[in-house]
Amino acid sequence: MKQPLTQGRIQLAPENHLSAEQIQAAKRARRGFMQQALAAAGGALAAAGSSALAKASSNMPPDAAAWTRALGAPVGASGYGMPSKYEANVQRRQSPGLTRTPLSSVSFTPLQSLFGIITPAGLHFERHHSGAPEIDPEQHRLMIHGLVKRPLLLTMSDLMRLPSVSRIHFIECGANSGMEWANVAVPTVQYTHGMIACSEFTGVLLSTLLEEVGYDKKNAKFILAEGADGSALTRTIPIEFALDDVMVVYGQNGEMLRPENGYPLRLLVPGVQGVSSVKWLRRLEVGDKPWNTREESLHYVDLLPDGTHRQYTWIQEVKSVITSPSAGQKLLDKGYYEITGLAWSGRGRIKRVDVSTDGGRNWRTAKLQEPVLPKALTRFRFDWNWDGSPALLESRAIDETGHVQPTMAQLRAVRGTRSIYHNNAIKTWRIARDGEVTNVQIG
Amino acid sequence: MKQPLTQGRIQLAPENHLSAEQIQAAKRARRGFMQQALAAAGGALAAAGSSALAKASSNMPPDAAAWTRALGAPVGASGYGMPSKYEANVQRRQSPGLTRTPLSSVSFTPLQSLFGIITPAGLHFERHHSGAPEIDPEQHRLMIHGLVKRPLLLTMSDLMRLPSVSRIHFIECGANSGMEWANVAVPTVQYTHGMIACSEFTGVLLSTLLEEVGYDKKNAKFILAEGADGSALTRTIPIEFALDDVMVVYGQNGEMLRPENGYPLRLLVPGVQGVSSVKWLRRLEVGDKPWNTREESLHYVDLLPDGTHRQYTWIQEVKSVITSPSAGQKLLDKGYYEITGLAWSGRGRIKRVDVSTDGGRNWRTAKLQEPVLPKALTRFRFDWNWDGSPALLESRAIDETGHVQPTMAQLRAVRGTRSIYHNNAIKTWRIARDGEVTNVQIG
Repeated sequence: MKQPLTQGRIQLAPENHLSAEQIQAAKRARRGFMQQALAAAGGALAAAGSSALAKASSNMPPDAAAWTRALGAPVGASGYGMPSKYEANVQRRQSPGLTRTPLSSVSFTPLQSLFGIITPAGLHFERHHSGAPEIDPEQHRLMIHGLVKRPLLLTMSDLMRLPSVSRIHFIECGANSGMEWANVAVPTVQYTHGMIACSEFTGVLLSTLLEEVGYDKKNAKFILAEGADGSALTRTIPIEFALDDVMVVYGQNGEMLRPENGYPLRLLVPGVQGVSSVKWLRRLEVGDKPWNTREESLHYVDLLPDGTHRQYTWIQEVKSVITSPSAGQKLLDKGYYEITGLAWSGRGRIKRVDVSTDGGRNWRTAKLQEPVLPKALTRFRFDWNWDGSPALLESRAIDETGHVQPTMAQLRAVRGTRSIYHNNAIKTWRIARDGEVTNVQIG
Repeated sequence: MKQPLTQGRIQLAPENHLSAEQIQAAKRARRGFMQQALAAAGGALAAAGSSALAKASSNMPPDAAAWTRALGAPVGASGYGMPSKYEANVQRRQSPGLTRTPLSSVSFTPLQSLFGIITPAGLHFERHHSGAPEIDPEQHRLMIHGLVKRPLLLTMSDLMRLPSVSRIHFIECGANSGMEWANVAVPTVQYTHGMIACSEFTGVLLSTLLEEVGYDKKNAKFILAEGADGSALTRTIPIEFALDDVMVVYGQNGEMLRPENGYPLRLLVPGVQGVSSVKWLRRLEVGDKPWNTREESLHYVDLLPDGTHRQYTWIQEVKSVITSPSAGQKLLDKGYYEITGLAWSGRGRIKRVDVSTDGGRNWRTAKLQEPVLPKALTRFRFDWNWDGSPALLESRAIDETGHVQPTMAQLRAVRGTRSIYHNNAIKTWRIARDGEVTNVQIG
């Protein structure tokens, strides 16, 4: 990049972790303070050397140096640390009016405020059917039975001494981006794409447990997983998935699962819609046919144009979204911006992400952050100089199996207009002349 | 693994996330309940099929099913989630008597309770010199000056629009395992090795900023980094490091840095002792010689056998430790255990980890969890059947540059007996006949 990124002066930039109100407040505050401060500091800094620091400091706000003149918090002030009070608006949020009760509802991950590929456990989206129980791990049991030689009832301690693996995977709800089907222009990426999160999970491969119980290799075709919450949610898992990379998970991002993510035990079916990764897992049954339980017959099915329902959609197909700049943010000045976002595929690794700033007419390839892992979020980045004219930002992901993320029009041509689930279409953000970023559908 | 892991019955196992007291309590509770329950459940489960569930359930403790008969917490009960109340003892801890004031002290990461390679931000060890300030990001500034053409004063917003990278790296305090030099058999791995943590960090490469300010390519040899806390901690960084992989970091594990880890901005010098990764970063000065500031002249130096001091030790050399089983835990029964731990090297990737169960006489190679990343923690795992006899568990790491983790005797032969810092020796845990695991030094 030959052009100076900061162009010799300090530019106001998008606060990708602040609300629109905070951005406006910051803008007002800075227009006054910063212009004076920089006019003065500019001269002082040009002199360079350590004397410049003293002069520059005198141009800092009076409070800025307060923490340099006082003692801070002692170590161990908190046995378990929390974010700064200045980050209080980075939180999971419900979408008002989306559901009738918060006991069977969703809270969304604030993707616009996050970096890298790991989602903090405290911000992992929630989707409960009867609320999140708080289970005593000493009393919790996992039963494995059905077409097996040696049924087992396992304590958490039993499970935690077994051979384990740690893997970074995403979990995406099958209904993520569901409101986009109906052209509901929800205001931010938190609501359009925030039913996804990515964690380092630790647990026991289901294949290890199936070997241990001596499953019936001839007749076993499916596994039923059941949760210990009030809804006793059940899902059918094909045996090929179970023997491949399905895990019985107790660890998330280095520590035990959080209560709302299935503590003390959940299933993880990598690459498959989130509902299959049954939380508060208490039972695994080996059988020879799918169970067709309530949550897999009445929900998580796709109504197709010919009037039939598509049931048992396993894979979350290749998808991506730009998280910054994104709807609800505002570009405060022309100049350099890093466009960044997330891409993922339930079929494996992301191979390439393209970015368009003109609504899909021209595409250029983005940089992918290493390591690019299978069935995990992949962070992409793209250098962009905004010239102040209106723009339409889009990203398009391609996975290692060759699947290409479709436009909304392409998806509707196949899937019709009455779907709720499994929307992996390209997302467009519109940037207006005044820098305002909004959610639009152009396809 | 041909031998059944659970040997046809449920074995009591080590709670690697519980205190010794809790393990004893669990043991007492289970000996009564579980033996009765399993005698009954064993017969019922042998019948298999779904009717077994009802029978097995009737053998569960009365409270066990309480959460299956009630609604749990609604979504959004917490905009920012926290661990289960049952995990309250998984916390950072101070070592009593280690320092005179908690404002200039350490709290340690509970490695014995953690999985995988990511350390939750809330459990990242702390090391402050004047306490942890809580800095207002709107007021914080980073100044870059010295041997540069265009000195800069940057706001957080300025920094956060620049080209960024995300990388998983460890940070280890140079004094980690320091008490082991003096043969202090501290009780757990939290205190022997808990001044290390590993995170996905996001920020701007220092090389990007140095290009932006036009650093003096002929004369620039070192960078001085300075913190905004009360101690205004300063460290000298060689320019080769600065131009390689040093980052100016604002993101940790997906979200903004925590206050105690440098919010809103810190330096990250991958592979180098933690003190160089200056927290609450406010100033970077480009110069032509090392500064020899207080914290790099009086502290973080190694007193060698010939009476001289070794100053400016940059690299954290290859090291590993078994985190489970580890001191303070107890094996409650013979049988299968997964031995697991962490390895790392400031020089790059871990190439191999060997494990010994007989105090270093025989070694076998452990499995490494992928991805194995440079200057990051690497999780290793090793299958072990404990036959009930006393054992001495050790791990030995080798990095991609060929460096081999030394024994304590080898390290003392070179470094003498009066060091505090830079102890990367092999650690031994002793397992007694009764399963008690203790910290011993045998080299």
